[in-house]
Amino acid sequence: MRRAVELAARGLGSTSPNPVVGCVITDAAGTVVGEGWHERAGGPHAEVHALRAAGEAARGATAYVTLEPCNHTGRTGPCAQALIEAGVTRVVYAVPDPNPQASGGATTLRAAGIKAEGGFLEAEAAAGNAAWLTSVRLGRPHVTWKYAATLDGRSAAEDGSSRWITGPESRADVHRLRAESDAVLVGGGTLRADDPHLAVRGPAGTTAASQPLRVALDTRAGLLPTARVLDDAAPTLLVVGEDADTRHLPGVDLLRLPLHDGRVAVHDLLAQLYARGVRSVFLEGGPTLAGAFLEAGAVDRVIGYLAPALLGSGPAALADAGITNIARAVRLDITEAVRVGTDLRITAVPVTEAVPTAPKEH
Amino acid sequence: MRRAVELAARGLGSTSPNPVVGCVITDAAGTVVGEGWHERAGGPHAEVHALRAAGEAARGATAYVTLEPCNHTGRTGPCAQALIEAGVTRVVYAVPDPNPQASGGATTLRAAGIKAEGGFLEAEAAAGNAAWLTSVRLGRPHVTWKYAATLDGRSAAEDGSSRWITGPESRADVHRLRAESDAVLVGGGTLRADDPHLAVRGPAGTTAASQPLRVALDTRAGLLPTARVLDDAAPTLLVVGEDADTRHLPGVDLLRLPLHDGRVAVHDLLAQLYARGVRSVFLEGGPTLAGAFLEAGAVDRVIGYLAPALLGSGPAALADAGITNIARAVRLDITEAVRVGTDLRITAVPVTEAVPTAPKEH
Repeated sequence: MRRAVELAARGLGSTSPNPVVGCVITDAAGTVVGEGWHERAGGPHAEVHALRAAGEAARGATAYVTLEPCNHTGRTGPCAQALIEAGVTRVVYAVPDPNPQASGGATTLRAAGIKAEGGFLEAEAAAGNAAWLTSVRLGRPHVTWKYAATLDGRSAAEDGSSRWITGPESRADVHRLRAESDAVLVGGGTLRADDPHLAVRGPAGTTAASQPLRVALDTRAGLLPTARVLDDAAPTLLVVGEDADTRHLPGVDLLRLPLHDGRVAVHDLLAQLYARGVRSVFLEGGPTLAGAFLEAGAVDRVIGYLAPALLGSGPAALADAGITNIARAVRLDITEAVRVGTDLRITAVPVTEAVPTAPKEH
Repeated sequence: MRRAVELAARGLGSTSPNPVVGCVITDAAGTVVGEGWHERAGGPHAEVHALRAAGEAARGATAYVTLEPCNHTGRTGPCAQALIEAGVTRVVYAVPDPNPQASGGATTLRAAGIKAEGGFLEAEAAAGNAAWLTSVRLGRPHVTWKYAATLDGRSAAEDGSSRWITGPESRADVHRLRAESDAVLVGGGTLRADDPHLAVRGPAGTTAASQPLRVALDTRAGLLPTARVLDDAAPTLLVVGEDADTRHLPGVDLLRLPLHDGRVAVHDLLAQLYARGVRSVFLEGGPTLAGAFLEAGAVDRVIGYLAPALLGSGPAALADAGITNIARAVRLDITEAVRVGTDLRITAVPVTEAVPTAPKEH
């Protein structure tokens, strides 16, 4: 199953709106006879790839799948049926399918006399599919907020200069995470200050083949047609206020949203992105947009690149999250802290439990 | 030698203004026959403890010492002479003694026909003695700046509330670091906002036996006599401007310093503390004082407790370090990043080399 989880991860960034899935088929002796993973939306599911690889060896075999095999006929046939027809006699899966349209695969398998068991390495497989599982559960894309800051929490110096706070290894790591996302999102302040490109860089500076949607939030449509984010390296969606004048931006894919106090509502934006098939959003900045997402409870994962540097002034990485007292701080669990070059990458997820209060001391 | 370094560390916090030193004596067969460490200033040196433990077994033995044995007669006799008299035939030491008053021990040993070799595990032993070595080299105390902040670099919420950003394990860890320091230093803002106690808590809430000097910077002597920092749990030095009215604070140990733009000069303060035997300072707050120390180049180590929380507003952990452009950021090396309870403790030391510039990208 661990191998199946590894295989599943190869699909990150290209299977959306589908989950990533990996499948390993072993014969009665425990020898691997077929492997596969869901490579891209619309393409064959992991089980189908693995069954093809196994061929006749699938008869009497066991299939290890990271997600309960689907039971519905979408662009590809139902996998439960394919497993039955191939003569597999046992199916071990990690995560039950939470999608009401697709579940019931295990029931179908059992009705055909196949031993179907769930829950193996479930947490590990679920972590690999966090974005998709979150989007199914909440009906909105999974949101990762990424920031880069000094140890004292500054994302730029007092004069606005920010190149470079973090090292080249961190910046390459960000490109990897962009590539795993369906969409990359930035706000107006970042657009104006940095003129970011946001496309994923491939090896040796080339533009990578698979590009996430670039979503640029520009309520007044103040962006110039020459902005780097509007080039053809990757698709771009410009989010503007419903009355914004966009005549200077012909041919740009626009999403018009109502404004509240001059701002787009976070959940309006996420609902629209979800409707367009976006299941994971990589939120890159800036501090005000991040604050709005945090205040809306719409940050599912935080990835901070902390540079070993101190500034003592300059804008903070996060602003205006509507929190005034320490008791209302957004509490997280740090799930990982690793070195990336000379920087430290911290990954954390929000906790929802109440935090116990401690006695007074100093 | 690794064992000797471990033994040396037991003296942290009680040997100042002397270094910490550990010593292990082994016989010809390599069996340990004596161990010792410098336990407190004025008490016997590590070598003397180890030689006493070894007794006659020291004859023909090898002594492993973390610091070159001293050659001068202070409150205790010179260790080089004691090793010669005990009949030790080989001395292996880690760090050469940089103190001009004490060095030459190896020369003395060699003149007596003893094989004396330095540089074994030098980096490791030097790290254990960082405070003392820095103070000898610079003629001022070694300064550790400690801060506690959220992942977005806030040391309190917008309304000033800060209890508790970090968890109980981090707070206990701070008490351990205070106990290893000669002095704990806070500024006026922290004194007014938090009324800190700053004494080291021992097991079960008791006050620990060995207490660092509490140094409170209060240029206008605005502190009330009832301030917790003035109680008798530990000695306190109140640093005030030279013209401050201190009539309401009878019996308080005062250090009067000239003010420049209303502030004490960092190097004046450090020179005075050094003259009083302080070799290590644990700088606890607040952001303005930390900024002044950083601007003065007087921070030798940074220890940050990062809590897995986000605030989006509130004071930053560091302010006013005189840096306006990213190119002038204080660059550090992260030497350690470990979990302390649910927090992350990051230890870093300033780097002095130039940082290469990278090509423009985003």
